[in-house]
Amino acid sequence: MKIVKISDKVSIKRSIDSGTSEQQAIVNSIISDVRTHGDEALRMYTEKYDQVNQSTFSITTKEIEEAYQKVDQRFISIIREAAANIRSFHEKQLRPSWMTTEENGTILGQKITPLDSVGVYVPGGTAAYPSSVLMNVIPAKVAGVKRIVMVSPPNENGVVPAAVLVAAQEAGVEEIYKVGGAQAIAALAYGTESIASVDKITGPGNIFVALAKREVFGDVDIDMIAGPSEIAILADETARADEVAADLLSQAEHDPRACSVLVTPSIRFAEAVAAEVEMQLALLPRQEIAARSIADFGAIYVTTDIDEAVETINQLAPEHLEIITENALELLGKIRHAGAIFIGRYSSEPVGDYFAGPNHVLPTNGTARFSSPLNVDDFQKKSSVIIYSERALKENGAKIAAFARIEGLEAHARAVEIRLKND
Amino acid sequence: MKIVKISDKVSIKRSIDSGTSEQQAIVNSIISDVRTHGDEALRMYTEKYDQVNQSTFSITTKEIEEAYQKVDQRFISIIREAAANIRSFHEKQLRPSWMTTEENGTILGQKITPLDSVGVYVPGGTAAYPSSVLMNVIPAKVAGVKRIVMVSPPNENGVVPAAVLVAAQEAGVEEIYKVGGAQAIAALAYGTESIASVDKITGPGNIFVALAKREVFGDVDIDMIAGPSEIAILADETARADEVAADLLSQAEHDPRACSVLVTPSIRFAEAVAAEVEMQLALLPRQEIAARSIADFGAIYVTTDIDEAVETINQLAPEHLEIITENALELLGKIRHAGAIFIGRYSSEPVGDYFAGPNHVLPTNGTARFSSPLNVDDFQKKSSVIIYSERALKENGAKIAAFARIEGLEAHARAVEIRLKND
Repeated sequence: MKIVKISDKVSIKRSIDSGTSEQQAIVNSIISDVRTHGDEALRMYTEKYDQVNQSTFSITTKEIEEAYQKVDQRFISIIREAAANIRSFHEKQLRPSWMTTEENGTILGQKITPLDSVGVYVPGGTAAYPSSVLMNVIPAKVAGVKRIVMVSPPNENGVVPAAVLVAAQEAGVEEIYKVGGAQAIAALAYGTESIASVDKITGPGNIFVALAKREVFGDVDIDMIAGPSEIAILADETARADEVAADLLSQAEHDPRACSVLVTPSIRFAEAVAAEVEMQLALLPRQEIAARSIADFGAIYVTTDIDEAVETINQLAPEHLEIITENALELLGKIRHAGAIFIGRYSSEPVGDYFAGPNHVLPTNGTARFSSPLNVDDFQKKSSVIIYSERALKENGAKIAAFARIEGLEAHARAVEIRLKND
Repeated sequence: MKIVKISDKVSIKRSIDSGTSEQQAIVNSIISDVRTHGDEALRMYTEKYDQVNQSTFSITTKEIEEAYQKVDQRFISIIREAAANIRSFHEKQLRPSWMTTEENGTILGQKITPLDSVGVYVPGGTAAYPSSVLMNVIPAKVAGVKRIVMVSPPNENGVVPAAVLVAAQEAGVEEIYKVGGAQAIAALAYGTESIASVDKITGPGNIFVALAKREVFGDVDIDMIAGPSEIAILADETARADEVAADLLSQAEHDPRACSVLVTPSIRFAEAVAAEVEMQLALLPRQEIAARSIADFGAIYVTTDIDEAVETINQLAPEHLEIITENALELLGKIRHAGAIFIGRYSSEPVGDYFAGPNHVLPTNGTARFSSPLNVDDFQKKSSVIIYSERALKENGAKIAAFARIEGLEAHARAVEIRLKND
């Protein structure tokens, strides 16, 4: 793993796949086909891309029951505990509608309302993660969304993995369709005979899914277009090199384009971690993926002191940040940009991937500068409420009309004045 | 104004300008030029599009002082009162960072952090509204954003309107540049020698500004791409036809593509409002604009009862909603989708445009189904905080490792297990 002395400005080397114009053209034509031909287009594309011929898309109660038989029974209890933790953390994010009152009769407020309906995309193949189902569905459920739809492509046997179905059931999904790719996104955005449209689409997917989400954005809301996963670890010599190396590798095994970075003021610690990474890497089942990630996107930055290390972290704005230093908590207030912050040696990043409760859908590619982990707010919206009394309008009407006239909007002024005149 | 008996499904006829491919090409080349040539490109495009030759872009303290001399002194006191109301409403939206603790030593939380920097675009010409400056800047200021930059194109005399400069000063902007169009958006997103880049860009603009915002989105955050303004009024015979007509026209005068709709269960009231609209329209200075808006996008929907009227409103998901009916407050709980809700006859929509306090930047084009008024949350982001104790990891580590292995991620499992083994 390469060790770099920090210069005045660093940025994570990142790899974003924004798709080719050919891929965009394919996606646009799929969306247009689904809008025109509905279910028929879904059937055609499912046969073409998933090699599955199906007349209906809906997952049946029987398929769910069979999924429960298929999975390890211990998994069911672990997933229930994880779901409970995720639910509990997200319930604490709930906010009430609120109002303020004034003596002149004015009432102002914010009314918080859940979205009507949400669609969650779950990728097929090796990227079908039950944890991802929990992390996308539970915040929507906690927010009060009534209709939560899940879509996932059928595998070569025409089924969706049992663990994913169990996770969906535990999270409270009541509508699941075996359809994937850009065609599934189009169905969620515009509806077909079988699948009613939704107001927002979340969940990860391949480049076709990402391009389709970007394309339908505006007609429906979307979560984000996630880039490859990232971890930055801020550590000093009080950390253990073998543990830090293991955490760097846990991110690297996700994707050859994943990005693992250590920032440390200690050259000695940097060298120890680099050596540990080589040793542990050799023993990993996903060695090939992790090795490419470490070679292409991994780095160890050595800083002159802890303050410079903190500033480096803020420049990187990483998706995941671990702080394993003496007095780690004291640094928390200085961290301005990071999706999730893990503090201390027992807070290994995988703790947050599955179990602790906070969401694992996090801003990548430096967008932690302005974005947040997926959360309950993403599934609710606010409406302003304005109630003016007769007295409030009498007190303020002339000022409002004057302001309107400064902006050249006479009808605005008259709308206020006609009430004052009528009384 | 046309009167339509409600059928089972209605939607506001809306007009969205998504730009031509020629406009997109122009915008892309401007952005690329500004990224390459910085200030030099800004100067060139300002000369080309604004016919102003300027060597520097910064508004000076002297220009601000002169603006205060130029505006009506009564305007200064009105704008101060409006700014105080807006500040007060948005301060109530502030949320603290929070945490939860468990007996096993686990601490979980959300750390709320303001964005570092925000750029606010203020259009030139007749669309230069001081109220828009207040509505965009104050929420960012309340959120704790340290650097707020305003950009606005110079008019033919090379200046920005005095009312806009006064509003900026009152709202607390400390950095203002005379530059507009796609070139200003590019400067905010990528920075030039004179203008450092920001993390988020908000504010309305023409089609070139909208296309540029869409283009830079991802590298920086943006607020939304607003469509033409809309109002829906839900009223029965307890409302006054002249007041309802005045409110419909106040929206119509904004833009020939603005959309004003009345939904009422009373055909008699519908006819009375239609007649009032004609009468009042004839007396408006912006008659031509309002007449086109009413003819092209206006409608009165007559429903069989109030419940059907409420359902119609939810289908429309309007930007502004007025409810002027008997027991209007009782309907509030049934309204699921609207940007801002004005209740009762004294809550005329212009009350919210300038003065009451809630934001006038609102979701248009049906996006109130999933979007909110501009608010303090838009200028802050959350970071999850995860602190696991030794005991917490001992209690849960095996379950986390098992979950990781179900997803085929062995390095994740090992990152947890190495800690258990090391202790």
